[in-house]
Amino acid sequence: MKSGAEVKSDIEIARAAKKKPIQEIGARLDIPSEHLLPYGHDKAKVSAEFIAETRNNTDGKLILVTAINPTPAGEGKTTTTVGLGDGLNRIGKKAAICIREASLGPCFGVKGGAAGGGYAQVVPMEDMNLHFTGDFHAITSAHNLLSALIDNHIYWGNAEEIDTRRVTWRRVMDMNDRALREIVCSLGGVANGFPREAGFDITVASEVMAILCLATDLKDLEKRLGDIIVGYRRDKSPVFARDIKADGAMTVLLKDALQPNLVQTLENNPAFVHGGPFANIAHGCNSVMATTTALKIADYVVTEAGFGADLGAEKFFDIKCRKAGLKPAAAVIVATVRALKMNGGVKKEDLGAENVEAVKAGCANLGRHIENVKQFGVPAIVAINHFHTDTDAEIEAVKAYVAEQGEEAILCRHWAEGSAGIEELAHKVVALAESGVSQFAPLYADEMSLFEKIETVVKRIYRGSEAVADKSVRNQLKQWEEQGYGHLPVCMAKTQYSFSTDPNLRGAPTGHVVPIREVRLSAGAGFVVAICGEIMTMPGLPKVPSSEHIFLNDDGQIEGLS
Amino acid sequence: MKSGAEVKSDIEIARAAKKKPIQEIGARLDIPSEHLLPYGHDKAKVSAEFIAETRNNTDGKLILVTAINPTPAGEGKTTTTVGLGDGLNRIGKKAAICIREASLGPCFGVKGGAAGGGYAQVVPMEDMNLHFTGDFHAITSAHNLLSALIDNHIYWGNAEEIDTRRVTWRRVMDMNDRALREIVCSLGGVANGFPREAGFDITVASEVMAILCLATDLKDLEKRLGDIIVGYRRDKSPVFARDIKADGAMTVLLKDALQPNLVQTLENNPAFVHGGPFANIAHGCNSVMATTTALKIADYVVTEAGFGADLGAEKFFDIKCRKAGLKPAAAVIVATVRALKMNGGVKKEDLGAENVEAVKAGCANLGRHIENVKQFGVPAIVAINHFHTDTDAEIEAVKAYVAEQGEEAILCRHWAEGSAGIEELAHKVVALAESGVSQFAPLYADEMSLFEKIETVVKRIYRGSEAVADKSVRNQLKQWEEQGYGHLPVCMAKTQYSFSTDPNLRGAPTGHVVPIREVRLSAGAGFVVAICGEIMTMPGLPKVPSSEHIFLNDDGQIEGLS
Repeated sequence: MKSGAEVKSDIEIARAAKKKPIQEIGARLDIPSEHLLPYGHDKAKVSAEFIAETRNNTDGKLILVTAINPTPAGEGKTTTTVGLGDGLNRIGKKAAICIREASLGPCFGVKGGAAGGGYAQVVPMEDMNLHFTGDFHAITSAHNLLSALIDNHIYWGNAEEIDTRRVTWRRVMDMNDRALREIVCSLGGVANGFPREAGFDITVASEVMAILCLATDLKDLEKRLGDIIVGYRRDKSPVFARDIKADGAMTVLLKDALQPNLVQTLENNPAFVHGGPFANIAHGCNSVMATTTALKIADYVVTEAGFGADLGAEKFFDIKCRKAGLKPAAAVIVATVRALKMNGGVKKEDLGAENVEAVKAGCANLGRHIENVKQFGVPAIVAINHFHTDTDAEIEAVKAYVAEQGEEAILCRHWAEGSAGIEELAHKVVALAESGVSQFAPLYADEMSLFEKIETVVKRIYRGSEAVADKSVRNQLKQWEEQGYGHLPVCMAKTQYSFSTDPNLRGAPTGHVVPIREVRLSAGAGFVVAICGEIMTMPGLPKVPSSEHIFLNDDGQIEGLS
Repeated sequence: MKSGAEVKSDIEIARAAKKKPIQEIGARLDIPSEHLLPYGHDKAKVSAEFIAETRNNTDGKLILVTAINPTPAGEGKTTTTVGLGDGLNRIGKKAAICIREASLGPCFGVKGGAAGGGYAQVVPMEDMNLHFTGDFHAITSAHNLLSALIDNHIYWGNAEEIDTRRVTWRRVMDMNDRALREIVCSLGGVANGFPREAGFDITVASEVMAILCLATDLKDLEKRLGDIIVGYRRDKSPVFARDIKADGAMTVLLKDALQPNLVQTLENNPAFVHGGPFANIAHGCNSVMATTTALKIADYVVTEAGFGADLGAEKFFDIKCRKAGLKPAAAVIVATVRALKMNGGVKKEDLGAENVEAVKAGCANLGRHIENVKQFGVPAIVAINHFHTDTDAEIEAVKAYVAEQGEEAILCRHWAEGSAGIEELAHKVVALAESGVSQFAPLYADEMSLFEKIETVVKRIYRGSEAVADKSVRNQLKQWEEQGYGHLPVCMAKTQYSFSTDPNLRGAPTGHVVPIREVRLSAGAGFVVAICGEIMTMPGLPKVPSSEHIFLNDDGQIEGLS
């Protein structure tokens, strides 16, 4: 909450929203109601038939919202994405928002919602933070069907000769459950199979999630699912999902989930909320289906990418845009005075006091992200997401710094004021997007070797001195190149808190060494994951989980989601 | 398929259905469209507000469809339930159908759909056999949230002193996955908790599923969830879900799932498809919410119970009707000539040949079920679900046998002809239901001891000579009685293929001993499970799972569901 006790909580604001029937929201983008598959009165999926019909439309302008490195102070990337979408509509543009779906598991842990905040939210926020339209449940089912089919294949004779020690496909659950991270399964005797080590990841970490977010249609989805490597034989040759005939049924389970979800902002503007891959071990962007569809039916599409620009924007450009042929017209980099102060060395408990010097010091982090985004040929503008403790001097310090970089920083008050607080940014973004200055190109060419791609990101984006990796890692990459996977982009899995692999190293470090500890091939999603540190793919719950405070009040309303 | 190649498959018939918008179906029962929460254009949930408003309406007549003991020949209980609902509408009655939801897991194993068959189906059958409105996913999530909270409670200090060897709450997944039946979890070191034995059941076997099906409103749901016993302390005292503060968040996850789902038959008549507990270790009936709501807005409600009448009807009467205060007006017992022949000793491969003597011999099974249903004070009528190989002599043999029992058997051709083929039964059922002869009473009184309740079912329904149990089982029952659970009904878990515990003992055996191997307390659902044989709570997949033949065809239609 940004100010005193009179300020309403996110859930109170969301509950008071005057939602319009989803058919009216669809009509704003000329989607006929028969092509909206409703889920309740305020959510709908856009039909595959309608999407196919729009394929030859001209594309609107794509605007990426990214951010400085996240800090515990929060930066408000989703809030700004939603606010900018509302702002563009306010100034008369036909604009749509594309954001990611929220994961159910973390809702019961420490995290609140993922639908924006204040007066820049997407609704119905309760549904979006719970089951929504069932997409994640469908992904869980498809993933676990494949898991069951693998053990079943082994049980009934193992015709594909899968090495049970080398089954790489785990199981998933949309829950924070540390007890499932590492298990031994198939215990209890002959009827239960061959005991082996296994484990669960959270659903958002599933390769099926990444596939759903990158697939361009049902055929492409089915092909990618078939391409999944489930494990290896003793001779190290891969066994594919296709080999055990799992791809057809998995596609059937995901048929509806592939269709983008349409909801609305508090100001009744259209928002596509679809897909939500783990920004660590996947690319962390809204689905290609949603983004490309929105571009066909809106003049401006505002989307976000996970974490800070070093991770999120890089993957957005190098994986999503590269693969889907998207050409972003502009990027907005979100910063808050508080987060800049933390990047400048201030502790969280001291954020309330004015500290212009710390703001200036922290601006180095922002400056690095501006430079990085421009490396992709995309023009950038800075949004200062206003917080009530910000002082004029602090705000001026940010503006001055950004001006020195040759760019502009705009103060935005969408959290407190909705679209009225972000008009200036909306006008500037339109001007930037229409200027034609964007000359988007990915950072590296497909033809580069996998390790060179990793090195390129490390040196040019993270500003490390080098990427280092054991021989086994380099050999693995070479082997994949020999198997025909050398053209894939790399998906960096690194802490989101720093340009380096040390989460405590804030600001704009240089010269650090980036160790590549492990590499994983997501053959269905179509990228090679380079792991530069501990990556937790199944979170745990805290000592007092937020679930303890989530309940239905006497009016049947949900309390405890925020 | 009942006849030659010209006959359409269930999925072909379902696909050709002329579905009406779900709002029109709701209007048939005077449900305003604002109280229908749509899921696509052909499915909807009925709002809790509307249900509350109907609470003071007069009840319609409740008709139970049950069956002889199932055989591999099939008896068509759901098909007859759907057909009778259509038949009642055809003769001008305001009738609704209440059936159970299908489990996703078995769809990919050997089983086809669970939406009826031929021209007596509920649609959209593909959705119903896949994610439908997400109820089972919500149950899976609520169940596994509790599981995660248990291990998390232990991890963070175990304030409730749960004995990790006595955690009785497992995890669930809606998938046939034998590898998860028995696992060791929390491996991998300190950060992952305390290793212990654990395992997964299929979602339909979850106590949460039974609770959802018995709950009368959200408050009752929350209370029952809190009453779940998750495990025991070293002193054997129970730890409840409420003790670890799980009930509120579980209720929030199940808020939408508690609202009954409305769909339609091929003939556009309303069908409530809601809940689907495992008829083995739970009571196996459509939800109380759906049945009671349907009774308030329809004049006739046709519902079914799992398996044969010995298991399904007994639990329907003794658990569901007792707990929900329902008073069934009539029962229909479904039989097929083929299944009677199998009960008379014929092998499946010989079912095509006429065998009147075998039919007569098998009728003993049918006769026993007629007697049993009448013990509850409910009048019964027999539906002969016609199959094209049935001969006139065979059908006459059944009719003659039933007439000897003082009841009537009606030949029904709803599979091939829809409602036109079941008009006679519809008229007879109306006459029976309106006759006022039903004097329903459960088989045993709440006050009886738990073991006496078990004995009563064994002797009066199964016609066994006695129920036997080890001292440990009897002591456990006594302990629960001391803890205040003595008033609960018993939920028998027995093979569905025989009145005895030997699945191969068909017909109408008497004098058999029924061993009670184990008892389980479902304190939230409100019954004590008496296990009389092997009960598999997590199925496996066959050598060639049906998933291998499930895929999207070039028109985007689902193939392989039936």
